[in-house]
Amino acid sequence: MADFDLMRELALDGGGKILLLVMDGLGGLPRIEGGPTELEAAETPNLDRLAAQGTTGRIVPIRPGLTPGSGPAHLALFGYDPVEYLIGRGMLECIGIGMKIGPKDVAIRGNFCTVDGGGVITDRRAGRIPTEKCIELVEKLRTIKVPGYEFDVEAVQDYRFGVVIRGAGLSGEVDDTDPQQTGKKPLPAKARIPEAGKTAELMNQWIAQAGEILKDERPANMVTLRGVSMDPNLPKFAEVYKLKAACVAVYPMYKGVSQLVGMDVIETGAHDKPEDEFRRALAQFEAGYDFVFCHIKYTDSRGEDGDFDAKVKVIESVDAALPVLLQSAARPDVIAVTGDHSTPATYKSHSWHPVPLLLWAPGTHLPDRATRFGERECMGGGLGLFPASDLMPVMLAHAKRLQKFGA
Amino acid sequence: MADFDLMRELALDGGGKILLLVMDGLGGLPRIEGGPTELEAAETPNLDRLAAQGTTGRIVPIRPGLTPGSGPAHLALFGYDPVEYLIGRGMLECIGIGMKIGPKDVAIRGNFCTVDGGGVITDRRAGRIPTEKCIELVEKLRTIKVPGYEFDVEAVQDYRFGVVIRGAGLSGEVDDTDPQQTGKKPLPAKARIPEAGKTAELMNQWIAQAGEILKDERPANMVTLRGVSMDPNLPKFAEVYKLKAACVAVYPMYKGVSQLVGMDVIETGAHDKPEDEFRRALAQFEAGYDFVFCHIKYTDSRGEDGDFDAKVKVIESVDAALPVLLQSAARPDVIAVTGDHSTPATYKSHSWHPVPLLLWAPGTHLPDRATRFGERECMGGGLGLFPASDLMPVMLAHAKRLQKFGA
Repeated sequence: MADFDLMRELALDGGGKILLLVMDGLGGLPRIEGGPTELEAAETPNLDRLAAQGTTGRIVPIRPGLTPGSGPAHLALFGYDPVEYLIGRGMLECIGIGMKIGPKDVAIRGNFCTVDGGGVITDRRAGRIPTEKCIELVEKLRTIKVPGYEFDVEAVQDYRFGVVIRGAGLSGEVDDTDPQQTGKKPLPAKARIPEAGKTAELMNQWIAQAGEILKDERPANMVTLRGVSMDPNLPKFAEVYKLKAACVAVYPMYKGVSQLVGMDVIETGAHDKPEDEFRRALAQFEAGYDFVFCHIKYTDSRGEDGDFDAKVKVIESVDAALPVLLQSAARPDVIAVTGDHSTPATYKSHSWHPVPLLLWAPGTHLPDRATRFGERECMGGGLGLFPASDLMPVMLAHAKRLQKFGA
Repeated sequence: MADFDLMRELALDGGGKILLLVMDGLGGLPRIEGGPTELEAAETPNLDRLAAQGTTGRIVPIRPGLTPGSGPAHLALFGYDPVEYLIGRGMLECIGIGMKIGPKDVAIRGNFCTVDGGGVITDRRAGRIPTEKCIELVEKLRTIKVPGYEFDVEAVQDYRFGVVIRGAGLSGEVDDTDPQQTGKKPLPAKARIPEAGKTAELMNQWIAQAGEILKDERPANMVTLRGVSMDPNLPKFAEVYKLKAACVAVYPMYKGVSQLVGMDVIETGAHDKPEDEFRRALAQFEAGYDFVFCHIKYTDSRGEDGDFDAKVKVIESVDAALPVLLQSAARPDVIAVTGDHSTPATYKSHSWHPVPLLLWAPGTHLPDRATRFGERECMGGGLGLFPASDLMPVMLAHAKRLQKFGA
């Protein structure tokens, strides 16, 4: 991974402009034996030209064999070893739905659950109530008052919601109240360190009121709270890489992670197409940004759906929009195109398979023999197979933004 | 290497069945310039088909350039960084000849040596006495009595023997008695920590008696003891990987290392052929095992002999036996074929060269462009070149036995 002390020492306050284009879940698998992957099946004349002119390789998202969630996978692309730099589950859940979380706030994942007359949990997920019901119950939970503190609650999906606590002296060092099995009562929130006592006490007050409010509901008549966490205070892009960085993403989750590493999050439209995102990215370069992270969500979504053809179409739509970028005078000097992980349609889920990468930086790239952008073509690529968390220094180098190490 | 905390967190208690087929010393070198290696020269239609359908790569046994012994090389294949997880030399020697070593026992390598009238060593290897003589002298050493403790002695080869001490309060923290040069007396066994004082004292009692018994022998009239060690208490397969694992190997050394990582060692015949070992492996899958390590010794033996053609024939015999495995209903879901290290016939010894690997897991492998199994073909493989100690997570991933890391 990017060694931040090295980066701080070597990063220059100037150089080329960098675009990191992430097609979420880009990597795939053949649908039939001997057939192409999604990326290989897609008609991608623009990406193929970049791959042929530039250099290619593959990245290992976390470690060989490990399938990443979206949070750790993006941290890795940003140069943070995700095994070392952990974002709490509560943070990820609340970031993922776009909740505002300040540096002193606590973020928590909440579950609705079912308890019997004795307060014993009979269903940890309250029969997986529909999201509409969740929204309705969250509305009620918002009426809870805990003096001196703000409890912000948002529905996530089904039985899940997010809670952000705002106020003085909070800590993330509080254990889950979910006992992880039915037949037990929810646990009281318990501090792991003395400094977290206040937070645990506030959570217990809030849970008691939630129980009162929900007592006549069925099946969601109680809550459990999990993944209590705070801003992990990650080293920031400006400080470690000397980059003024912006995020162009449509989904809240990716905006949230970008914010945690110090990127400015650019306003986007909920229905932005790739060309819209590319135009927004160009506008940031014109506005003086050095680095833009541009995130395409739907490659992953269609992979998760198990829809091979639809994933192919998303890739083709990204390719078709590329001239917007490439023909602009504000075109960046370095373009890296990759995914945060693989999401093969045959899997309908994330996977551990290495992700193809192309890096195009006229004047600094060493072209390899790849003539197309695809899994198999990238296997012989000039950048080899390397950890995703090394991509940042590689991009910085291609942008001539790193000094020599040693004399 | 496999981060065991990650593995403990992510490994699922279910998924596909895995066969790790190790052809000892598989990797080789061309006998003549421009010629094939042993594996490339071998007719291996079955391995070639698996390589063509599956994915390939190469493993680095320990570190680039390091030639491993069999113990560390196997530890690496099992996911243990062999530089971090050391098995004492005494343990390896005694395991290697099939001695039983309990968790509280101490294992030691012994040498017969020659001393002059003043007790000064004149030959540290007693003129390399033949193994038959060693066996005869070991018989005499077995008569030594040390009250309250059992000293088990077994001949190894030439002037070498193994000693296992059994009893209460033992420790491996005792220095060697071999002064490492002639012209000096054997050193007394000396404890490195106070808790090892008893063990050192027992060893000195035993050595004194050995000197008495051997005093009229020539040239082997004394002994030195080295590599005092205990069971390294390695994390076990069931605990870290949630695998019920079995070892099918003919040689004691490999059984011993497998036992140290928590595999059940399956009874084999001294003259088992590859098809016999494959049948035993299948029987273990049928009996509910998730993981079988199947070890073929003779690739290494023929490499050590410097017999290129004989090594080719061993590889061909393994290939010819493969249908036993592949056509069985108990066929595992994931088959990895590799070696623990290279043993080029031109070297007549182990070497550091990366070892070819094929991984076949229909539905989860990403096929690469390899059409055969061989050193050069694997160089462009989809799994790249990676440390042997990462193979376990890669196999687990292909068996869908690892959860997602993070959200």
